[in-house]
Amino acid sequence: MDYVTIRYITKKPKLNNPILIEGLPGIGNVGKLAVEHLIDSINAKKFAEIHSKDFPPQVFINTDGTIELVNNEFYYWKAKKKNQRDLILLTGDYQGLSSQGQYELVEKILDIAEEFGVKELITLGGYGLGHDIGEPKVLCATTGKNLVKTMKKHGAIFKKNEPGGGIVGASGLLLGLGKLRGIQGVCFMGETPGYLVDPKSAKAVLNILMKITNVEVNLSALEKKAKEIEQIAHQLKEMEGLSKEKSEELKYIGWVDFTRPQIFLEQVLHLKQLD
Amino acid sequence: MDYVTIRYITKKPKLNNPILIEGLPGIGNVGKLAVEHLIDSINAKKFAEIHSKDFPPQVFINTDGTIELVNNEFYYWKAKKKNQRDLILLTGDYQGLSSQGQYELVEKILDIAEEFGVKELITLGGYGLGHDIGEPKVLCATTGKNLVKTMKKHGAIFKKNEPGGGIVGASGLLLGLGKLRGIQGVCFMGETPGYLVDPKSAKAVLNILMKITNVEVNLSALEKKAKEIEQIAHQLKEMEGLSKEKSEELKYIGWVDFTRPQIFLEQVLHLKQLD
Amino acid sequence: MDYVTIRYITKKPKLNNPILIEGLPGIGNVGKLAVEHLIDSINAKKFAEIHSKDFPPQVFINTDGTIELVNNEFYYWKAKKKNQRDLILLTGDYQGLSSQGQYELVEKILDIAEEFGVKELITLGGYGLGHDIGEPKVLCATTGKNLVKTMKKHGAIFKKNEPGGGIVGASGLLLGLGKLRGIQGVCFMGETPGYLVDPKSAKAVLNILMKITNVEVNLSALEKKAKEIEQIAHQLKEMEGLSKEKSEELKYIGWVDFTRPQIFLEQVLHLKQLD
Amino acid sequence: MDYVTIRYITKKPKLNNPILIEGLPGIGNVGKLAVEHLIDSINAKKFAEIHSKDFPPQVFINTDGTIELVNNEFYYWKAKKKNQRDLILLTGDYQGLSSQGQYELVEKILDIAEEFGVKELITLGGYGLGHDIGEPKVLCATTGKNLVKTMKKHGAIFKKNEPGGGIVGASGLLLGLGKLRGIQGVCFMGETPGYLVDPKSAKAVLNILMKITNVEVNLSALEKKAKEIEQIAHQLKEMEGLSKEKSEELKYIGWVDFTRPQIFLEQVLHLKQLD
Repeated sequence: MDYVTIRYITKKPKLNNPILIEGLPGIGNVGKLAVEHLIDSINAKKFAEIHSKDFPPQVFINTDGTIELVNNEFYYWKAKKKNQRDLILLTGDYQGLSSQGQYELVEKILDIAEEFGVKELITLGGYGLGHDIGEPKVLCATTGKNLVKTMKKHGAIFKKNEPGGGIVGASGLLLGLGKLRGIQGVCFMGETPGYLVDPKSAKAVLNILMKITNVEVNLSALEKKAKEIEQIAHQLKEMEGLSKEKSEELKYIGWVDFTRPQIFLEQVLHLKQLD
Repeated sequence: MDYVTIRYITKKPKLNNPILIEGLPGIGNVGKLAVEHLIDSINAKKFAEIHSKDFPPQVFINTDGTIELVNNEFYYWKAKKKNQRDLILLTGDYQGLSSQGQYELVEKILDIAEEFGVKELITLGGYGLGHDIGEPKVLCATTGKNLVKTMKKHGAIFKKNEPGGGIVGASGLLLGLGKLRGIQGVCFMGETPGYLVDPKSAKAVLNILMKITNVEVNLSALEKKAKEIEQIAHQLKEMEGLSKEKSEELKYIGWVDFTRPQIFLEQVLHLKQLD
Repeated sequence: MDYVTIRYITKKPKLNNPILIEGLPGIGNVGKLAVEHLIDSINAKKFAEIHSKDFPPQVFINTDGTIELVNNEFYYWKAKKKNQRDLILLTGDYQGLSSQGQYELVEKILDIAEEFGVKELITLGGYGLGHDIGEPKVLCATTGKNLVKTMKKHGAIFKKNEPGGGIVGASGLLLGLGKLRGIQGVCFMGETPGYLVDPKSAKAVLNILMKITNVEVNLSALEKKAKEIEQIAHQLKEMEGLSKEKSEELKYIGWVDFTRPQIFLEQVLHLKQLD
Repeated sequence: MDYVTIRYITKKPKLNNPILIEGLPGIGNVGKLAVEHLIDSINAKKFAEIHSKDFPPQVFINTDGTIELVNNEFYYWKAKKKNQRDLILLTGDYQGLSSQGQYELVEKILDIAEEFGVKELITLGGYGLGHDIGEPKVLCATTGKNLVKTMKKHGAIFKKNEPGGGIVGASGLLLGLGKLRGIQGVCFMGETPGYLVDPKSAKAVLNILMKITNVEVNLSALEKKAKEIEQIAHQLKEMEGLSKEKSEELKYIGWVDFTRPQIFLEQVLHLKQLD
């Protein structure tokens, strides 16, 4: 096994000028939630897995008692209509743990993207504000000025020098390293308080993604989750006098893999019982 | 010396379709205790050592004043009866310190396992609950659905999505990376409070291991240790008003190499004197 | 992409016996401020970028909404007068994050320097005192005794065993590793409290650099910034009873990229609003 | 430059069956102090330097204003009498920062040792007790049982399972990795409180080293330093009600390079002024 290894689990799909869309874990898990709901909604097919020695040395346990080595996963979807494009979708359990691991991972992702002829990519993430918000806006950044214009037409928002800290992690590196290879890229960052997983922000991100890709996504599952989270957030706020320990548990929840809802609910339940 | 180096200290043993059983340090040192007692009880023979640049830069001092570079060790045992299988047993002082080190170490272990024709492996560890328990149960996870069935027949317990955090370290990686090579694997995790080394949990793990391997293990040494630890735990609880410093010393004990009982008892004694 | 990669963005300039001048981020951002103002003032031209897998996995966002992968940048300037020398100027967003990353980066910088025939280099940095100072002095250290003499003639100050901790980072390594290659080097360290970016200290460093290189630098922009910072420092001091959290925000400011003044001012403003 | 690089600064000396003696920085700087005083006393000659990318990216500043890249240094000394042996002496500014860096460094040191025909090595260090002691004893550990016997004859002390944590760092690894190459080794650990640099413990270590090597070392400089430190320790104890900050400064002193006494005294002075 190389430092970063690609493993195809089906024959390599034949794709026509595909767009790569990335959503890995991050603040509010916005990007991951968005891409996973996109995958479910359009019934995209998994075709490859990436393993890295810079991922945690960990396996997850499926509901049937079998294990799964932590990974990143590639899915594809073939366009159904004329105004659509083939898609490659990337999500996963982790980003690289170290700086070098992040660079190696993104370089490998770009190698694979180039193999499939990807000339444009879209990365999705959250923009943590640290306070409650009403309707989350979606900030944008791109690899080129032309794309800024195009994205503004689609309603994307650009704020001068925001986020001030730039874009950290795969969503940023895919644009930065992709640009060096001549791949055009756009990053959408959904505003999020950043405390909990944020399906509402993921929905906002998917709304703009739908406009750009002309792909219809069923948002009902995401809306349902958003309501659940809102309720949980409400209950959490009601628990006044939270001990420091508990607020740390809370922080942790923000990083829970929401796509494993049983675990998540058990954890929240556990929190409530403790109270 | 490579990043991970195997050093044979005897001629390579000839083994017939052996099972690899791993027990490296971890929560409650459950896996390490179990495999070391198995080795002692069946009188398995050491045939190789692994060194890694990702182990701490450290030597231990034997009772005779000589030193030993920290390592992992391979033992073998040849089946005595028709319903038994040859065994390769792995234990050691440390797991890799970094993610990459863990992956490299497990890849090397699997290389060696394949050299000896290993097609099945069993990993042993603890499942830390953070609170006292009565009789520790043994949770199970496997690489395939068939194995889940087989293990259930042997009385193994599967809990949906437990452990929630998956299996971290060599016990998890050996299953995850082994699966990619077509090696079948089972992990047994003995429940443990996780505060102290836990011979009781190790005994529970060995009980199920005996059923599966048809190898009889003399558990009396482990039972004796379990009683000692119970007594110590009892005394520790009696020491009320433990300063924070001392509770940290306590935590440390959970990681002490219990197979070096003199050290361990001295440390506990030291604790008591301090009180 | 290698661990450290050079990317030329223009044809390689033809330079005559150039001096390399380095100013990367560090205490008070003294070196970075000095080199960036030198570049602006003499209108030096960018000709190459360095990327490293040991830089943070991050892109910055330009004011036009486009992204820029974090990097180090090479500029050149050709001598206008007889008593001047061609210059290569190095600045950037980050130094390497790890020890190894720092060594690799500096080795690459020296490789490039040698390609252009560099035989002398000057590194610029801050010397953090941890307390307020009046007029910052500029300490000096060199690769050889002859250079000590020469620099003393130019008014450079040498204090026995100061800085006591030596010089850490690129400014030190360029001298240390350069010396092993037979490249002569001088480091100028401007005294600085080290709390905020310090244009005043950068100005002091540029003053001595001008004497040595016979290059005139317009210091007015730096002086203006120095006044702004002085005012901010004054206001910050007035905010008595700063909560611990805020003092940490303050510390952070010292590392803010002052060459992105909008961000910086917004952050300070934000601080003031909080008050 | 390789990850670890040896650089000869004189012609390779011709040595006859030399013993390698190591004393790198560590607890109480016992080993470093001992080897440096040995070097001074017998006037050993420096012949090589080691640089490593796992050392800090740092240069030190000499009293004349010139810089020195942090390193490890090899010295040699040729036997004067029949009952003496040629010596290779190793000291330096740092040990490797990471586990891997430590292994790589020690492997390189052993490569060089083997080049000069080293078959025996002695490593020197401190054994931190965390409390005041009267006359420091010198504990011993060896690579083989025969050596245990020999060392006991010379008055070396072996305590069952002490140090409990084994020997960490170069002093341990040189024995552990050397043993794998068939090099015999002995480690002497001088007891030390571990708070300050400990010339008294270094003297105890040199006393036993003299017996084994039949090399006379002038201990007067070390005795003088020991008195200075005793006085400082006394004064420090008198400063009651030390703030936490100051006790941390104190801890730091234990790591100060005592061979740069000006710096050290300034730091202590600074402490006293603060009081």
